[in-house]
Amino acid sequence: MTRRSGHVRVGVIGGGQLARMMVPPAVELGVDIAVLGESVEAAARIAVTEVGDHRDLETVLAFARGVDVVTFDHEHVPQPVLRALVDAGIAVRPGPDALQHAQDKLVLRRRLQELGIAQPEWAEVADAAELADFLDRVGGRAVVKTPRGGYDGHGVRVVSAAHEADDWLADGPLLAEELVDFRRELAQLVARRPSGEVAVWPLVETVQGDGVCREVFAPAPRATALTERVSREIAHRIADALGVTGVLAVELFEAADDRVLVNELAMRPHNSGHWTIDGAVTSQFEQHLRAVLDLPLGSTEPIAPWSAMINVLGGPADGDFDARVPLLMADQPAAKLHLYGKTARPGRKVGHVTATGEDLDDAVYRARAAVAFLLD
Amino acid sequence: MTRRSGHVRVGVIGGGQLARMMVPPAVELGVDIAVLGESVEAAARIAVTEVGDHRDLETVLAFARGVDVVTFDHEHVPQPVLRALVDAGIAVRPGPDALQHAQDKLVLRRRLQELGIAQPEWAEVADAAELADFLDRVGGRAVVKTPRGGYDGHGVRVVSAAHEADDWLADGPLLAEELVDFRRELAQLVARRPSGEVAVWPLVETVQGDGVCREVFAPAPRATALTERVSREIAHRIADALGVTGVLAVELFEAADDRVLVNELAMRPHNSGHWTIDGAVTSQFEQHLRAVLDLPLGSTEPIAPWSAMINVLGGPADGDFDARVPLLMADQPAAKLHLYGKTARPGRKVGHVTATGEDLDDAVYRARAAVAFLLD
Repeated sequence: MTRRSGHVRVGVIGGGQLARMMVPPAVELGVDIAVLGESVEAAARIAVTEVGDHRDLETVLAFARGVDVVTFDHEHVPQPVLRALVDAGIAVRPGPDALQHAQDKLVLRRRLQELGIAQPEWAEVADAAELADFLDRVGGRAVVKTPRGGYDGHGVRVVSAAHEADDWLADGPLLAEELVDFRRELAQLVARRPSGEVAVWPLVETVQGDGVCREVFAPAPRATALTERVSREIAHRIADALGVTGVLAVELFEAADDRVLVNELAMRPHNSGHWTIDGAVTSQFEQHLRAVLDLPLGSTEPIAPWSAMINVLGGPADGDFDARVPLLMADQPAAKLHLYGKTARPGRKVGHVTATGEDLDDAVYRARAAVAFLLD
Repeated sequence: MTRRSGHVRVGVIGGGQLARMMVPPAVELGVDIAVLGESVEAAARIAVTEVGDHRDLETVLAFARGVDVVTFDHEHVPQPVLRALVDAGIAVRPGPDALQHAQDKLVLRRRLQELGIAQPEWAEVADAAELADFLDRVGGRAVVKTPRGGYDGHGVRVVSAAHEADDWLADGPLLAEELVDFRRELAQLVARRPSGEVAVWPLVETVQGDGVCREVFAPAPRATALTERVSREIAHRIADALGVTGVLAVELFEAADDRVLVNELAMRPHNSGHWTIDGAVTSQFEQHLRAVLDLPLGSTEPIAPWSAMINVLGGPADGDFDARVPLLMADQPAAKLHLYGKTARPGRKVGHVTATGEDLDDAVYRARAAVAFLLD
């Protein structure tokens, strides 16, 4: 740890809920935290020290000069800006070489192929003819994805005819992937610090709907020891090979034939790890801070046999969240409520609830019941 | 909950570590938090929105008008200021009627006597003659305390002759108390919301040295069911009778004859409850926010059989804290480190470490070992 003006200071680019949730562990660890936010009303507003555009080099550079290490709430800082920071001698974690794999899905697919890590069948398609070839290869249906900028289901489309992606192809090549026949989705969360230490949390099951994470069960129920080991090895290998610093989330398909295939990466705390705030000795947010500061990583042990995390998506029909919170708290005094200080809009992630316990079904029931008080 | 500018806002007067530790649960609950701090470098600096004197009515009033409810990091806001806030229609929790019992030890002793709650023998002494009478009554030795302004051993003196308190008596009457023959010190933490709901954490043992809390063991080892019940009832009764809102810590003596006697009160989160951050479903800091916002209280269940909390008092001889933190983290990956962002001075509370587990001795060992890395 180095320090300026007496206290170690982490700078986070982006002021969403992930930056917001880095604030509690920063406060507990005695680390100052500063956020370059989109607005003074950003979710992470308590730590927003500058408001500005994360794509503007001067803005980002001025912000970065006031902190000891730069990290991220999202993957949207352009490569030229990231590389200019590095050239200016600023510690950027994760760095641009690693981060490009979370910014560009084609870069990721090529790299995983080089590494021999299992992933869906894929191709880079530049036009309808190439997409037609790929559709022939994978049985007539495929997923196409814009390589950059997609999130929560945006930039993803299932196609069964070559011309169904013409609008996107006008902007450049796409990633085409087979539609994996998967049993369920899993996520493997790890953290890696610059010195190379890696910490691995238990494998989890994630439940998506409309491309958005809805529920997470930790650890993944009924996962075989082999699936757990393979998932751990994949995530560890990616973290090492790509030189990731900070938290890495590897989204996985558990295929119907038992293979474990890499879907996508996030190089930051991730929705699949929110359960760790209440369900693990070290949360992903504390671990991310430790990792980007090159401090020894904390224990990833669960503190309860099971954790269930349910997202709060949108808000009640009458819009009055504040009236619902007391009902939830009165009914579920052990549920851990997390609200992101955001205005509710349909489908928007505005919070989550975690329940822990000896029995998964019971924890899921309690977490869902808590969320229902907020939405129904 | 009421809101201004879209978000519920709690205002904390005083920017020490207690205000600092209210920040994480405020962030998690989606509550905005503002602090009236002593300086921009206050421990709670991330939430400091105004710097000023908590004894100055205009300063406090201006701060209070920007928040939905006012609460405290300490008990030093003068009664006239508190009452002016109430007169101005501001929600002050705890209110002045309750808070005076934590501000003035003579007011507390009189009130506990009215309530018939067990406490040490005591007397208000205005001069050396009255102190001499009291010394005769209690066997020749007594503790004298300044009624107001004492903390962490300041304003407390053991005397065995009537003239040993003359310097303090020049400033007004003192509280004289018998030297209780106690087996150990205990603390009972509760929280009460304005609607009357009370939540009670397990009784804990506290270890003091030089008048400062050093270690806390939760729950209090080998406490009898009767001691636990009596302690709970005392704290519950005080919270109700005094109309406390927020967290109340009742410091207790477990006397050699098994009586449980009230030593002092704190009407705010308290050092004896720091273990709840890592060791209970709901921390005292989250509960304090719930209580002052009149929200339903959270579960006070421990999340592990045993918790041990060890204070970090002072710093290493070479002053280089930052060099010690990685040693601690590497050796004790499961220890929960809390640093308050304060400059280390001999004896100053600058942080704490909590360890939890199945075995108390093991947890105590691990927490002490962790702290030793910081200090030795």
